[in-house]
Amino acid sequence: MASDGDDKVVLLNTYVSMFAMRPKMALALKGIPYESKVEDLGNKSSLLLEMNPVHKKIPVLIHNRKPVCESLIILEYIDEVWKDKFPLLPSDPYKRAQARFWADFIDKKIFECIGAWLFKKKDAKDIKEELVEKLKVLEGELGEEAYYGGEKIGFLDLVLVSYYTWLLAFEKDAEFSVEAEVPKLSEWAKRCLQNESVSTSLADPLKLYEFTLQLWERLGRGGGAYN
Amino acid sequence: MASDGDDKVVLLNTYVSMFAMRPKMALALKGIPYESKVEDLGNKSSLLLEMNPVHKKIPVLIHNRKPVCESLIILEYIDEVWKDKFPLLPSDPYKRAQARFWADFIDKKIFECIGAWLFKKKDAKDIKEELVEKLKVLEGELGEEAYYGGEKIGFLDLVLVSYYTWLLAFEKDAEFSVEAEVPKLSEWAKRCLQNESVSTSLADPLKLYEFTLQLWERLGRGGGAYN
Repeated sequence: MASDGDDKVVLLNTYVSMFAMRPKMALALKGIPYESKVEDLGNKSSLLLEMNPVHKKIPVLIHNRKPVCESLIILEYIDEVWKDKFPLLPSDPYKRAQARFWADFIDKKIFECIGAWLFKKKDAKDIKEELVEKLKVLEGELGEEAYYGGEKIGFLDLVLVSYYTWLLAFEKDAEFSVEAEVPKLSEWAKRCLQNESVSTSLADPLKLYEFTLQLWERLGRGGGAYN
Repeated sequence: MASDGDDKVVLLNTYVSMFAMRPKMALALKGIPYESKVEDLGNKSSLLLEMNPVHKKIPVLIHNRKPVCESLIILEYIDEVWKDKFPLLPSDPYKRAQARFWADFIDKKIFECIGAWLFKKKDAKDIKEELVEKLKVLEGELGEEAYYGGEKIGFLDLVLVSYYTWLLAFEKDAEFSVEAEVPKLSEWAKRCLQNESVSTSLADPLKLYEFTLQLWERLGRGGGAYN
């Protein structure tokens, strides 16, 4: 890699976004220094609007002054550019396809549940039932492995653990316990959290819950939900 | 690659699915022989239910008796396994990230429009306006290049051209013309269709329109839309 100013890495993010936590973990695991720029989504910076004119969303990874958007795409980019440091995706094409399949499942199915709760679109009881069903599928997929990446944290671990901290926030509102419902998944998450690159990149569940209460207050007043 | 029976490639598909057209084109471009198994989505085969128990959807690529699901993931898998034959994704990490970004954009934004039309969720006029706006973004992204893949057809070309044949079906119902609205994109599509691997893998727009009329009749009778 070139070592001049062009090789600078900037991450446009927010504290609460599960999607932003993913590149934070990946960069930390690979030991890539970066500048974190925290966005106020109620008043998006001109840099964000310039770097992601299509979706205007975080996270955006800016590398060599060029933007990469969408968290899963950012993870693949980070893994391809800094491929020799802490590989995230498996090297076997079939295992890569499986990791991508489950990442897509998580971003569709688990996001639906957390999103429905955040935006009060469904009854918490219904959300819980659906969520537990999906989490059990993911727990089954983990099997007896230490991590989704096998013996080491990998791509799919980062994708799912970014929701774990949100699940702990959901626990504070709903009669739900990750540990009681999916004990092996809970053990896996705690194992991931022993890694400092993971634990320092994830948001505090209590702060996520506070954010949620503020969001509900704003929505109750008819204010928009930032996205 | 092993040349025994295990290396057999099977594609579970339907004729009308834009998602199934993608692996058909990729396999044809790379010259990989495969067995096509056409599914009746009103009466899914036990093989489909076994191979994609999570989503129960086509396309599924079965290689070495193991399933790969989700069309974009299948394209990446095909490109990684048969990497020396007609590469689909660029080799540069940034260009790869861009191709993945636009593929995701297409599957979110263009699918929303075509889906809203197919399932009569919105007025055709509103759909047309939104569709043209998104297609213009994609036309801008093509710029002066022959293909999204540069001088050769690549990953993103396959992703978008699978919608082109559906756009021609939409033309038969709406006051809409791809050629009039996005002339450069229309030229690009015609250029893609000069490739036999593309033209023989895409469905006939007239048949797609007939399928749509049958779907509307079934929906009108309260029948389910297969998916």
